[in-house]
Amino acid sequence: MLSEFGLFLGRKRNRYVVRNSKEKKEILSTDVEQIHILNPGVSLSISAMRLALTNQTLVVLGSRNGWPHGFVVPAKISGTIRGKREQFLAYQDSRGATLAKRFASGKAYNQRNLLKLLWKNRVRTEPSLAEMLYKASEEVEKLARETEAINGDSVDKIRTDVMNREARASKEYWTAISSLIPAELGFPGRKTRGATDPVNAMLNFGYKAMLFVECWKAIYYAGLDPYAGYLHADRPGKPSLALDFMEEFRQHTVDRVILAIFSKKMLKAEEITEFDEAKNQQRLSKQTIQVLTKEITGQLESDVAYRGERCQLKDAIQNQARSLVAYLMNPAKAYSTFELAW
Amino acid sequence: MLSEFGLFLGRKRNRYVVRNSKEKKEILSTDVEQIHILNPGVSLSISAMRLALTNQTLVVLGSRNGWPHGFVVPAKISGTIRGKREQFLAYQDSRGATLAKRFASGKAYNQRNLLKLLWKNRVRTEPSLAEMLYKASEEVEKLARETEAINGDSVDKIRTDVMNREARASKEYWTAISSLIPAELGFPGRKTRGATDPVNAMLNFGYKAMLFVECWKAIYYAGLDPYAGYLHADRPGKPSLALDFMEEFRQHTVDRVILAIFSKKMLKAEEITEFDEAKNQQRLSKQTIQVLTKEITGQLESDVAYRGERCQLKDAIQNQARSLVAYLMNPAKAYSTFELAW
Repeated sequence: MLSEFGLFLGRKRNRYVVRNSKEKKEILSTDVEQIHILNPGVSLSISAMRLALTNQTLVVLGSRNGWPHGFVVPAKISGTIRGKREQFLAYQDSRGATLAKRFASGKAYNQRNLLKLLWKNRVRTEPSLAEMLYKASEEVEKLARETEAINGDSVDKIRTDVMNREARASKEYWTAISSLIPAELGFPGRKTRGATDPVNAMLNFGYKAMLFVECWKAIYYAGLDPYAGYLHADRPGKPSLALDFMEEFRQHTVDRVILAIFSKKMLKAEEITEFDEAKNQQRLSKQTIQVLTKEITGQLESDVAYRGERCQLKDAIQNQARSLVAYLMNPAKAYSTFELAW
Repeated sequence: MLSEFGLFLGRKRNRYVVRNSKEKKEILSTDVEQIHILNPGVSLSISAMRLALTNQTLVVLGSRNGWPHGFVVPAKISGTIRGKREQFLAYQDSRGATLAKRFASGKAYNQRNLLKLLWKNRVRTEPSLAEMLYKASEEVEKLARETEAINGDSVDKIRTDVMNREARASKEYWTAISSLIPAELGFPGRKTRGATDPVNAMLNFGYKAMLFVECWKAIYYAGLDPYAGYLHADRPGKPSLALDFMEEFRQHTVDRVILAIFSKKMLKAEEITEFDEAKNQQRLSKQTIQVLTKEITGQLESDVAYRGERCQLKDAIQNQARSLVAYLMNPAKAYSTFELAW
């Protein structure tokens, strides 16, 4: 993650060289999984980009607050395009409908699980708050079950119903979560676009700049098309499969980490955002970006229970992308979403 | 085309700034259609890349002799993915077979047309050479017609037959062309991979580093997947639709230009390649790359007859990509290949 103005990324044989006007650091290229640039004032050499392409290391042209601008991708890709072909065919058959329901219900089950985890931690200390969390978890679970039970043999037929449940589950979830967010942060409820309040700005950074990039990479290197999704397929130009795929990882990768940042008081409320003169609006401070980057990266590298074993969360994301391909090529191999343990 | 070691590409508002240790040049971003980097010693700033992404200007991480290593692509794409979906569906129906035949026959008709053009220019001055060219053109035409007449309702059923005609037409064509190439260049016949003789190295540079990039860009920005082709579809990892699509432009964009470089004696035989100590083989000299870049770019910007009007060759390539999408979405809009006038 390169976020300092004036940084230069070069190459020396199989090492990256990062330097600013004062110091220079060398990093073995095989120790780098991703080069993520948040500051437009960073420069990099073509030979460094080639080294990244050779090692299948994604270079992300990020933006400070939100969606990345672009990616450096190899001219040749690994593997065949059979998975991609099935990805497009699946849109018209029951596989697309099954996946849309699963992505949405997977998200809702994880919302329920995070609510239950929060309930468990408060059941003795704050019983009335805990009860509210428990009730919300039951409502969200009901909606997750309803999502799973929707009938219809193609994604176009069920999308409205799925989206409706998804919106209701998210409303329950965020209403409950908001009672855990310090009042001085003035959380107005969950907002996706153009939110400048501290909490939504932090959530958006976590989802767009960090989790989305992990999901885009997993989808791309699994040989699927990030732009051809099921649940989000009606949004032109959007990387809709990457958006679909990130649903099941939101709670564990981002929401939980941001709640921990608040409960551990790692950031002072008034220091989270700062005023951006150029854009005439609030934006995340450098310090907030550092904390979010460090904490979410730490979470991605932490161990999770996954299919009866333990692995790093980021490896679980990559494995889920491979499971998705496996399901598309052979629907007998059911796709189960990643589930947050509580 | 940035091919000098130590160049830096930066940005100043809506301008690119190119500088080396001695001088600095500013170029208005809207005057730039493509940023193509051949030298690994070039560096560029993220803000320059963002400017390129905003303007849909492709940034190509090229290599000195051949295929590009990678591309900088936007995280969001323009338009819908309907074209892509049809592209994948078409593989299994008659559209895929029709396109495979058309790409191959389009190439062969252009081989015939270039042979006829060369015949026409020599019919008075060198009648026996002219006659050989004419005969070859007739053989190639016969194979083009045979390609068109192949029966089969999916590309898998006809690929071997199509490839067989394509190989025979190319053999006739290159055997005839070789008699126009100065003997001192020692042209061993057409070779694609690993060729280090001057003529094949020049052809490979023209196809891979220049024409391929134009075709990749046209395919990508028309909303199709460069990796999912018909004729070249059995080559894993290869950008097979971009390869399919470039067939019809090879003769006019590259072959003809290289023949003109020889007939105008723009390069001395012994200066075309130089020895690359690091790789222990011959490679194109800096001067050859400059001449090829200038001449092929000039050809891409020259006017061609296209559907009863005149436009630049590079615009014809982009229009052909849009025609391809139109055909995939509605087979009533037949796809006709670009044809070299003679």
